[in-house]
Amino acid sequence: MSISKDKITGWKQKVHEIIYEADTPAGKLFDVLLLIMIILSIIFVMLESVKGFEEKTYDYLYVAEWIITIFFTLEYFARIVSINRPSKYIFSFYGIIDLLSTLPLYLSFFMTGTAALLTVRALRLLRVFRVLKVTRYVGESNKLAKAIKDSKAKILVFLFAVLIVCIMMGTLMYIVEGEESGFKNIPVSVYWCIVTLTTVGFGDIAPVTPFGQFLAAVIMILGYGIIAVPTGIVSAEYAAATNKNIVHVNTQSCWNCNAKKHQDMAKHCYNCGESLRNG
Amino acid sequence: MSISKDKITGWKQKVHEIIYEADTPAGKLFDVLLLIMIILSIIFVMLESVKGFEEKTYDYLYVAEWIITIFFTLEYFARIVSINRPSKYIFSFYGIIDLLSTLPLYLSFFMTGTAALLTVRALRLLRVFRVLKVTRYVGESNKLAKAIKDSKAKILVFLFAVLIVCIMMGTLMYIVEGEESGFKNIPVSVYWCIVTLTTVGFGDIAPVTPFGQFLAAVIMILGYGIIAVPTGIVSAEYAAATNKNIVHVNTQSCWNCNAKKHQDMAKHCYNCGESLRNG
Amino acid sequence: MSISKDKITGWKQKVHEIIYEADTPAGKLFDVLLLIMIILSIIFVMLESVKGFEEKTYDYLYVAEWIITIFFTLEYFARIVSINRPSKYIFSFYGIIDLLSTLPLYLSFFMTGTAALLTVRALRLLRVFRVLKVTRYVGESNKLAKAIKDSKAKILVFLFAVLIVCIMMGTLMYIVEGEESGFKNIPVSVYWCIVTLTTVGFGDIAPVTPFGQFLAAVIMILGYGIIAVPTGIVSAEYAAATNKNIVHVNTQSCWNCNAKKHQDMAKHCYNCGESLRNG
Amino acid sequence: MSISKDKITGWKQKVHEIIYEADTPAGKLFDVLLLIMIILSIIFVMLESVKGFEEKTYDYLYVAEWIITIFFTLEYFARIVSINRPSKYIFSFYGIIDLLSTLPLYLSFFMTGTAALLTVRALRLLRVFRVLKVTRYVGESNKLAKAIKDSKAKILVFLFAVLIVCIMMGTLMYIVEGEESGFKNIPVSVYWCIVTLTTVGFGDIAPVTPFGQFLAAVIMILGYGIIAVPTGIVSAEYAAATNKNIVHVNTQSCWNCNAKKHQDMAKHCYNCGESLRNG
Repeated sequence: MSISKDKITGWKQKVHEIIYEADTPAGKLFDVLLLIMIILSIIFVMLESVKGFEEKTYDYLYVAEWIITIFFTLEYFARIVSINRPSKYIFSFYGIIDLLSTLPLYLSFFMTGTAALLTVRALRLLRVFRVLKVTRYVGESNKLAKAIKDSKAKILVFLFAVLIVCIMMGTLMYIVEGEESGFKNIPVSVYWCIVTLTTVGFGDIAPVTPFGQFLAAVIMILGYGIIAVPTGIVSAEYAAATNKNIVHVNTQSCWNCNAKKHQDMAKHCYNCGESLRNG
Repeated sequence: MSISKDKITGWKQKVHEIIYEADTPAGKLFDVLLLIMIILSIIFVMLESVKGFEEKTYDYLYVAEWIITIFFTLEYFARIVSINRPSKYIFSFYGIIDLLSTLPLYLSFFMTGTAALLTVRALRLLRVFRVLKVTRYVGESNKLAKAIKDSKAKILVFLFAVLIVCIMMGTLMYIVEGEESGFKNIPVSVYWCIVTLTTVGFGDIAPVTPFGQFLAAVIMILGYGIIAVPTGIVSAEYAAATNKNIVHVNTQSCWNCNAKKHQDMAKHCYNCGESLRNG
Repeated sequence: MSISKDKITGWKQKVHEIIYEADTPAGKLFDVLLLIMIILSIIFVMLESVKGFEEKTYDYLYVAEWIITIFFTLEYFARIVSINRPSKYIFSFYGIIDLLSTLPLYLSFFMTGTAALLTVRALRLLRVFRVLKVTRYVGESNKLAKAIKDSKAKILVFLFAVLIVCIMMGTLMYIVEGEESGFKNIPVSVYWCIVTLTTVGFGDIAPVTPFGQFLAAVIMILGYGIIAVPTGIVSAEYAAATNKNIVHVNTQSCWNCNAKKHQDMAKHCYNCGESLRNG
Repeated sequence: MSISKDKITGWKQKVHEIIYEADTPAGKLFDVLLLIMIILSIIFVMLESVKGFEEKTYDYLYVAEWIITIFFTLEYFARIVSINRPSKYIFSFYGIIDLLSTLPLYLSFFMTGTAALLTVRALRLLRVFRVLKVTRYVGESNKLAKAIKDSKAKILVFLFAVLIVCIMMGTLMYIVEGEESGFKNIPVSVYWCIVTLTTVGFGDIAPVTPFGQFLAAVIMILGYGIIAVPTGIVSAEYAAATNKNIVHVNTQSCWNCNAKKHQDMAKHCYNCGESLRNG
């Protein structure tokens, strides 16, 4: 009996190794295949929304979509089965994404239009970093994430200020421009103000009165100037994060004169000349 | 008599605590309610400008607007009454905003169109930082404000240079493009030049002659290049502000003269010359 | 005779003081009046190009323009007369600008359309920094100018690379999109490519074929990514310039142990404890 | 015989000197002429695509194009002949570009439309740095290239994240906006999303429903905020590269072990412990 249980465990371990890890050839092959299928499936969902192909093409896409979805469903259950504590996977970030990647097609039986939601699968592409096994990439990603996290509070304060400016300038533009030139109500004016301040500038709405154009110029120059703020924050934050790693890597202190901040390749204290290694 | 006066003072203190502070549960509740009402009122003012709702909706919005305004008016007087020196509140930044947040609706009896000015209430949202009681946020906000203030002179010089460029390039475009392609006079050309230099690019006016397009390309590349200037300024300024905090990590203080902020490698007090190590 | 010569010299000195300097009350008043006239004249030139005013307004503007131009002409000659070596003024940056600020109106007798060139007067506004007597501003301006000058070589290399990319991507778009969708020849395609890469995006020309839109997306992401390059250069350059000024301000070295880089407020050597002042 | 061989070698060396190098007057002249011809030929190719000239002009352009191409072909063969190991040139970066710069015109006999590909010649302009003989420029270019190379991994991670965001937001916009307002299928919506996130904003497609405009505002603010990320990365990376050069300004080398790059405050060699001052 214990052998049988061991067998099952062995089978589960094998599946776990293939699905969850990417160190063995089989595990790597599985992950690469998975990524190809994810990319294919995103392309298929996109193409399905394009009008103008032959009727047959949609049939092929529909079948391909179902094959991939069934594969993803099987993979999802395999992941649940092969892990010791399934709840840990199910409620993890990837677990939820994997579920959301299969549900929409099943839901499309009951509700039309949900199939397009399958592009949530794009999030599964984040697995690519795991497959590449390039810790460097993940490391960079983590460092980036850290820099962004450190800047979060500041950037929120900044965005909050931008929003207040947009609400007030939007209202002003609504009053100044009137409704003929596209500023038909305050929400639309605020929307236009965000479009302008962020230097996107669609041009579907544009001021026509001289004073409106003057105000628009002020908003633009404001937007041009304040884009420096988030950039400056992230620059400084990122530089600080990088400096921390670069500068104080050597924590040695001389046993003779206690001088610190030795260069990495130092053998002797730069202050008193004592040997650092035999210290 | 003195007891009665004490009572009033006590009552005033209680109101002051609720309205001005956010440390007690009552004070916090008041501030949160206030913020909700500010947000609601901004949404109401915005919706009121949207055409196409039923007649009834506008009636509801009108009533809601009045209820909130009366509440704000009462709050304004409560703030004046509960403070010892009312003038200090009335002429403060928040005092003026609070007044401007109630006036427009009263003015709308005499002048039409002023109701939209109620969105000045958006400025009241700045109180959110006080409610959050997250000194961290305020601290960040102050640091940001400091960095921007330090960069102000430089950014003014920069914007001044940008304006001179825009006036001259705008005139050139007016001469080159002529009036058929939207560059109908110099102010409009200057406006277009600002739109282009800031990389907004509405497209309501666009050059059509080859030489005009060449000039436009020059302006765009200029704008693309000089956006680096304010960004660089704020980055450096912000990094400097951050570094200042980093550099003086040495928390030693001289046991003799109590001087602080010693350099990391200091052996002697820079102020009195006492040895720091054997102190 | 020598007295008469002294008189003339004295008269010349007086005029020189008023026109060229801004330290005496008369000199400051003159400069402020000059700035006001420059600003007024720019506004007048701009307004003159606007259609739709009454006939009379143009007459007034015409007269005002002539009065200011005559004043500027007189000022120009006064500057030449009151300086010892007139050639030094005439061929200086401001001398040439001052000449160009008066010529166009005189030329408008012979050639139409030259009057608009009067906006070159905007360059005269650079005098504002002298009037403000805020060395701080000029200092900032110089520091900025230095940072930009230091970055010049790098930014030229960068812009050169951008231009090569634009020429090749523009040609590609011309081949891909064909002539129906606005990409009517290669120069226009290159122009569009610059518009897109700099994130201006007028929208007067936009790709319509799927492959053209794909290429456009590549160009945009490229432009979004490489805007980081000039910004990064100026940031680093500016930070380096700022650091140099901040850190090594104190050039003292201890007479006892020769330690350098003392803090500004240091009285004693941080290394050996010797007094720095009495050294 | 050996003399004859020497002659040939001498002749080859002479050609090599002229074509490959730019130190001798002849070599410099050749390179400058080459650059002028490259620029002219790019201008000719561009002009050829412009409609509306006289018939004769196209004939002239055609002839000029052929003359330049034949010259480039001769130059290409001269380069192959005058080098000892031709394969080293043929498969080098410049060798391939030089070939691609002549082929399209010959191919235009067989395929129409290939002549426009001649603008690949723009890449030949990179030779300008060699002609300028300004090592400074090349140095800057290398430094830039290094900074970009160091940032590559991070920027790839960033662009990957941007792409995933664009795919998902594009799908959402497709669902929200429907097909009337230009979001006719998912690929186009994703394209629009890239246009918006990178703050280009053509305006050929723009949201019209309130919720679509709200989503667009979110995308824009996102794009406005995250442009800080690549900028911050390059800034920090570039600053780090610059700092590396700055930090090791100390040009001392130990008289005992010849170790270089001592810290500014070092008294003893970090490598062998010898005193640096009394060395």
